Amino acid sequence: MIGNPYEDFEENEGDTHAKVAKRVTSITYIVIILLLVLNVCTIWIFKQKRIRYIHETGLSLLYGVLAGLIIKLVGVSISEVRTPKIGSCPNVSYNFSDGGLPYYITTEFKNGSNVLKRLYAYSDTLINNETAIVVINKLSEALQFDPEIFFYILLPPIIFFAGYDLKKKHFFRNIGSILMFAFVGTTISAFAVAAIMWLYCQTGMEDGLKEEFIFFECLLFGALISATDPVTVLAIFAELNVDVDLYALIFGESVMNDAVAIVLFESVLSYAPYKNATFSAVGFLSCVGQFCLTFFGSFFIGTTVGLITSMITKLTRLCDFPVMETSLFTLMSYSSFLLSEAAGFTGIVGILFCAITQAHYTSRNLSADSKKRVFELFETLNFLAENFVFSYIGLFLFTYDGHIWRPGFIVCSFLAIGVARIINVFPLSGLLNLGLRQKIPCKFQLMMWWAGLRGAIAFALAAEYSEGEPRRIILTTTLVIVLATVLVNGSATTTVLELLRIRVGIVEDAETDHIINQLARKEIGDEDLHRLQEQTGLGELGWRFLKADYSYLVPLLTIEGSTTEEAFPWCGVVGRWLTSERRADRQESLGEDDVSILDDNYHPVEDTEAILTHRRSKSDIPSSSRNLGNSTSIQNNVHNSYQNEDIRLE
Amino acid sequence: MIGNPYEDFEENEGDTHAKVAKRVTSITYIVIILLLVLNVCTIWIFKQKRIRYIHETGLSLLYGVLAGLIIKLVGVSISEVRTPKIGSCPNVSYNFSDGGLPYYITTEFKNGSNVLKRLYAYSDTLINNETAIVVINKLSEALQFDPEIFFYILLPPIIFFAGYDLKKKHFFRNIGSILMFAFVGTTISAFAVAAIMWLYCQTGMEDGLKEEFIFFECLLFGALISATDPVTVLAIFAELNVDVDLYALIFGESVMNDAVAIVLFESVLSYAPYKNATFSAVGFLSCVGQFCLTFFGSFFIGTTVGLITSMITKLTRLCDFPVMETSLFTLMSYSSFLLSEAAGFTGIVGILFCAITQAHYTSRNLSADSKKRVFELFETLNFLAENFVFSYIGLFLFTYDGHIWRPGFIVCSFLAIGVARIINVFPLSGLLNLGLRQKIPCKFQLMMWWAGLRGAIAFALAAEYSEGEPRRIILTTTLVIVLATVLVNGSATTTVLELLRIRVGIVEDAETDHIINQLARKEIGDEDLHRLQEQTGLGELGWRFLKADYSYLVPLLTIEGSTTEEAFPWCGVVGRWLTSERRADRQESLGEDDVSILDDNYHPVEDTEAILTHRRSKSDIPSSSRNLGNSTSIQNNVHNSYQNEDIRLE
Repeated sequence: MIGNPYEDFEENEGDTHAKVAKRVTSITYIVIILLLVLNVCTIWIFKQKRIRYIHETGLSLLYGVLAGLIIKLVGVSISEVRTPKIGSCPNVSYNFSDGGLPYYITTEFKNGSNVLKRLYAYSDTLINNETAIVVINKLSEALQFDPEIFFYILLPPIIFFAGYDLKKKHFFRNIGSILMFAFVGTTISAFAVAAIMWLYCQTGMEDGLKEEFIFFECLLFGALISATDPVTVLAIFAELNVDVDLYALIFGESVMNDAVAIVLFESVLSYAPYKNATFSAVGFLSCVGQFCLTFFGSFFIGTTVGLITSMITKLTRLCDFPVMETSLFTLMSYSSFLLSEAAGFTGIVGILFCAITQAHYTSRNLSADSKKRVFELFETLNFLAENFVFSYIGLFLFTYDGHIWRPGFIVCSFLAIGVARIINVFPLSGLLNLGLRQKIPCKFQLMMWWAGLRGAIAFALAAEYSEGEPRRIILTTTLVIVLATVLVNGSATTTVLELLRIRVGIVEDAETDHIINQLARKEIGDEDLHRLQEQTGLGELGWRFLKADYSYLVPLLTIEGSTTEEAFPWCGVVGRWLTSERRADRQESLGEDDVSILDDNYHPVEDTEAILTHRRSKSDIPSSSRNLGNSTSIQNNVHNSYQNEDIRLE
Repeated sequence: MIGNPYEDFEENEGDTHAKVAKRVTSITYIVIILLLVLNVCTIWIFKQKRIRYIHETGLSLLYGVLAGLIIKLVGVSISEVRTPKIGSCPNVSYNFSDGGLPYYITTEFKNGSNVLKRLYAYSDTLINNETAIVVINKLSEALQFDPEIFFYILLPPIIFFAGYDLKKKHFFRNIGSILMFAFVGTTISAFAVAAIMWLYCQTGMEDGLKEEFIFFECLLFGALISATDPVTVLAIFAELNVDVDLYALIFGESVMNDAVAIVLFESVLSYAPYKNATFSAVGFLSCVGQFCLTFFGSFFIGTTVGLITSMITKLTRLCDFPVMETSLFTLMSYSSFLLSEAAGFTGIVGILFCAITQAHYTSRNLSADSKKRVFELFETLNFLAENFVFSYIGLFLFTYDGHIWRPGFIVCSFLAIGVARIINVFPLSGLLNLGLRQKIPCKFQLMMWWAGLRGAIAFALAAEYSEGEPRRIILTTTLVIVLATVLVNGSATTTVLELLRIRVGIVEDAETDHIINQLARKEIGDEDLHRLQEQTGLGELGWRFLKADYSYLVPLLTIEGSTTEEAFPWCGVVGRWLTSERRADRQESLGEDDVSILDDNYHPVEDTEAILTHRRSKSDIPSSSRNLGNSTSIQNNVHNSYQNEDIRLE
């Protein structure tokens, strides 16, 4: 069916080249899509048979590895065909002297028009023979990792969904611990890995490592390998209803430490001019400065884009056209990624904070239909992108020619990440336990240690900057670590949970939510405050933010809470102008919508129902908030989100 | 905020180049995304103010043109910077001797890594000055049309949604006329345009045209310009509730004639080896053979993929996991495009027929949740892609350097498409009116003539094959035609409707639907048949297909109708094995779902309600099918879709 792409080479040359290029590109994509289809079908079988030993990401990896192996075996010897002909093409000459850097080679072939150029270049010598081998080789080359697709197409939806689907309550309740692990822990981990690897290289046990792996390269490796991606673990947690705080800790840490690791990595890269000096105060300071600039720059852009979106959705009636509302939401979210990149910051961090802002503010302004659409759209994109990413990583094992295997380095790096995670998780937990009312138990710490899987971000960073021998050693090592941790740590999660006797099937404690919500009310006196703070473990700062959020930001940015005019009486006309005309509609339909006000953000109907039922049974209040919304008077409706809390807490 | 991409050029070179490349790519995408955001906001304002003079596609075009103009003005003189330096880059040398072909140049810059290569090449000469100009120029180049993005990313969702959202009833009721206009009409139009343009070129009124425009090139132009895209017109039709048959005629024709025009274009291309001969019987026959092969090959692949998807969704319980079901559906649909391309056929035709199959069979097997998700997903993708495409076309006017303006040629081409559409629409309508019971009135014919807008497909074909001077003349002319028809014909639709006194606000005649549905019943005798056929205008062939469809295909491919075992009693075990286990679940929930059985495919809740209400009021039957579904006995439920018809028709 696929046919010989050269069959009509006698035609108009330009036309034919375009056709051949299109075919090769198509075949490439078909391989990937068939992998994904296989994946979906297998996941379904596994889900139906309740097999938890291997998660969908693990499956994607395995399928990718298998497909790569098959292509490799069929493709026989790329170098045989390619090497002697380089430079002999008529119109285009390439210089491969930079080494087999995947970034350079890959992007050359990924894009069909480049495949075209190659085919064009080879056509004169290979037209009558070896065409099959050429097609397979092109395919193998085209299937190689393309960092641009990774960073621009696949990662953004994954990161966005992680931020958008964040269970804000649990995240913010554990914000102190999460930030501690993310910032301090990741930095510790990066330096610990760097130190161990540097020491290993200094022993000179493997040839050439001593000269190539200066501390700078080790630190790069440390930074990129510190991004954890416990997607398998969390999927099993969600399925088994493991303790929500443990979930929040591991999830929150992994979301934030991706951001920290990326920024750390890029800061270390910016330290490059000084890399030949053993230590330079200027270089170090520039590195720290770069870290802060990149992190807060991305944070600023991401949240700003989120706030602009919430203002647009608040002040227009786009909600009447769900397709347009969903499109605008998607476009703005993606632009946060691009703007951060364009400004020289980090898109992944930008889109993460944009997602959190969108979930917290913009989602309140969306129509019910769009809320559902947006969630489902990103859920589907996330599923596809995640499987795509892991298949892609799996493919890389065999389709990439530039691997440099250093067994000692690989073994040592496993040791290093294990040790680095020990001196990250346990001392920090101990430190946190000194201050926290709700301690992090020892078995949680062990689970956190175990959940240190490495995934897409680590691999993407390694693959993007892979010029030169040390970087290629790092890339191969990272690939092995990703494969091993996803398959081993991921698959053994259920067993480890059992061994550690961590309770499963826990339903969330609704009490704390109520108290946190009550904190945001203006009416609470200072005497109650300390008691409440103690009860919830929410710090002074957290409380202040929550209060400010409900008093000013929610009224300013959303159609919920008090009106902008009421929240900012000193603004006069501006306040009135910023008050959405949709508020009036909302009053009428509030009875139907107010479940979502109390909730984090949109959940599919079943979940909301489940949460509601759960709340009802937990909080011993006969009337549900759903019914109250309808019966409260108009004045009360303005403060509706507080009113419900009042009644439920009394 | 965007900063100077060269600011850190002193760092590690490889790292820096990757960074610069990422920034330029980001800026490119931001421009496009901001255009789309602007577009969405403007469309909203226009919709709110009920401005119908300009449709969203027209707006996208205009914004694209404006943005292109701004970039052009800022970018000042690309050639000044670029031309003298070509060939001077250290590692890569390019040969531009083929002329300013956009396909070649564009794809070189579209992809960031290629931008990287260019930046790399220029960095030594331009690093300290002119950087701003370089960035702008890169941007201008990167924003140029990339046929690969067009064909692989933007067109598939648009075409898929057109096929998936097809109102099957109206489409099949007018199938004879639609096929006539699509196949015969498009061919007539292509040859008529070709002949007129060829005659014009022979006059020698413009320099060089006589030599360059052999009949082969004229025929290519005729084929590509025959693809109509009346998206603006149809949007207004839908809003004003214009007669459904007129809608079906124009919509059906445009969907099918895209396919025909593409296949025609590619068949003519395959005629290329013979292009120097004035006429060759072998060449002509090969061309006709190529047409049939491409069309039916694509048709076969598209429908096969659709049927495979319906079998997978029928025989598995993927419906329990809507995300996976939606993903599988999307992946399979996209693979029909890729498979057709890889096989050397036409992806657009493949995905169109795949979409029709998916809508007719697979959508019946999807869970209610997935049905909604799939529809909404493609609705959003379609909206985004459509606006993207038209912005992109608009941008092209100023960002493309290879335009060759031939005013005479352009004026003559407007004349040609007008005349070609006259000798396409009116004679064919006359011919059809001889046979049709329900004639195509004169004012409908005039409206069809007016609705001959040209859009994305015509432009994409022109832009993809644009090497050499005649092709560039064709490209520029096509661009002007697209701009003019979308803006002029699109905007004047309401006026033309008024002038022609075509009635608006027509609600669909429910009678014919019932009769067509009744036709599918096995019980109908031959004596009723002729009367019914006459009443509906459905031919013998159509009736046979409908009957076979309901008797065999629906039971085989979906969970509706009779069971596979009953439909194929002679299949024994195979029939039992192919009977879905989900049938049992379906029986229980049939009461809720059977509205969709009678309906084309999924519609948002409001629409279904509207249709239902309308049906109730129209058909003078007190009990709605919704209630009947619940009360019929189990035996009747098996033939549920027929039972409802029975009762409603009695």
